[in-house]
Amino acid sequence: MTHTASTDGRYDVLAEACPTRQVVNRIGDRWSLLVLYALEGGTLRFQELRRAVEGVSQKMLTQTLRLLERDGLVRREVFASVPPRVEYSLTPLGQSLSSRIAGIREWAYESMPGIEAARRDFDAR
Amino acid sequence: MTHTASTDGRYDVLAEACPTRQVVNRIGDRWSLLVLYALEGGTLRFQELRRAVEGVSQKMLTQTLRLLERDGLVRREVFASVPPRVEYSLTPLGQSLSSRIAGIREWAYESMPGIEAARRDFDAR
Repeated sequence: MTHTASTDGRYDVLAEACPTRQVVNRIGDRWSLLVLYALEGGTLRFQELRRAVEGVSQKMLTQTLRLLERDGLVRREVFASVPPRVEYSLTPLGQSLSSRIAGIREWAYESMPGIEAARRDFDAR
Repeated sequence: MTHTASTDGRYDVLAEACPTRQVVNRIGDRWSLLVLYALEGGTLRFQELRRAVEGVSQKMLTQTLRLLERDGLVRREVFASVPPRVEYSLTPLGQSLSSRIAGIREWAYESMPGIEAARRDFDAR
């Protein structure tokens, strides 16, 4: 048990068998993070998402969306048009996570000059 | 440019060439997240870290620590004892990130029941 455990001691992300570890594994995946960021602004279709998240492959986006849907973070809706329209949006649970990870994005924007300076120092050693 | 860009438009995590995207890639890595969590409580030696972060290999931990050090998030100190002692701790920049990601850990603890229910529904379809 470490300081990173939940107050009731039921969960501990550092323990391999803890179910919350799987959640951290999911969030600790760049594509999941970026898809959640992209959906913050509202509903998007698959191809819109693919364009929004630069560099993601079709296969990786499909897989990421499926896992986020399974975890109840993203909702997938199929509309019976020709061709069928498929839309993705954040669920309330996904929105609650999204507001937490927005803090990390803001941190990255604020901290980028410091990080770049650290890299220059490190690489100059 | 999307709603996820910084207010001055200088950074956008969804753009592949943006330097903040690399930072998200770093955070969007389960081992980085878990190492930052583990160091929240204070300084740890390499083997202590390895025990704290269950399931990490020696090679992966070495690589993760090096990248976190290069980004200025983790400080590595070598003490001239026999054998040499190497200690890792969060820098002030690392601490500022750590407090943001603690929010995600808390979210995971709170949301686990909802996520597990979503998975049961998904798998029963």
